[in-house]
Amino acid sequence: MARKRFSEMQCPVARALDEVGDWWSLLIIRDAMLGTRRFVDFTRQLGIAKNILQDRLNKLIDNNILQKVDVGEHGVRHEYELTDKGRDLFVVITALKQWGDKWAYKSEHGFEILDKDTQHVIAPLSVQNKDGKRLDVGDVELKFI
Amino acid sequence: MARKRFSEMQCPVARALDEVGDWWSLLIIRDAMLGTRRFVDFTRQLGIAKNILQDRLNKLIDNNILQKVDVGEHGVRHEYELTDKGRDLFVVITALKQWGDKWAYKSEHGFEILDKDTQHVIAPLSVQNKDGKRLDVGDVELKFI
Repeated sequence: MARKRFSEMQCPVARALDEVGDWWSLLIIRDAMLGTRRFVDFTRQLGIAKNILQDRLNKLIDNNILQKVDVGEHGVRHEYELTDKGRDLFVVITALKQWGDKWAYKSEHGFEILDKDTQHVIAPLSVQNKDGKRLDVGDVELKFI
Repeated sequence: MARKRFSEMQCPVARALDEVGDWWSLLIIRDAMLGTRRFVDFTRQLGIAKNILQDRLNKLIDNNILQKVDVGEHGVRHEYELTDKGRDLFVVITALKQWGDKWAYKSEHGFEILDKDTQHVIAPLSVQNKDGKRLDVGDVELKFI
């Protein structure tokens, strides 16, 4: 019922949440971005029940965020990979990761996201205007169209 | 049970999801960023049941994302406003909004986020390295610490 409501909301944030699904789905997307492709590996890494995993994978495929790829290997019929639409959630996942590091996750264990080329940690995401000036929530306003 | 698992996960993304709560919570945060402060206004705008709204507001207060402010007016005992931690979710909400606009939400109705000063639409968020080079998910790697 909640999902139905979200999908009816005239708001791209609500619609994005509706398509991504739930927390499990975002963690599946996170792991797919880290290279996980096989059902059994998602199960192990997430500690998720198989029926829940299958349900979330199916919904992500229905929403064109993941796609099934036939790899034709013995014992593995297919793998899951992100579509362009799914890969584009990199910004959302990174925003959650950086917010989590700053405010929610205090631990000696964690991970850094590095630029492969330079091996430097990526820059903090920030909302900017067209001239590259950083904007806080108090610096913006909405225009309904 | 799912929430307990998330909170135990050694990952800032999972911890961020755990603290933000659920889709309703993110939509409450969205509305708070747009200026909503009163219980009755959240109810009307979200079409959410009062008990669910109160539960989510309480959890957001427990996690220091919202705070109750005593406004001392007749008939309104308090309002809800974002803490610094809550305001910092602006990047997450903006990332979801821009992804939703691009991939999930096709409608003539929507909204633009404008820089108050210039009245121009904000730039698309992108993950960048320290030199400002845009990075795709294929351009990064993780270092576990």
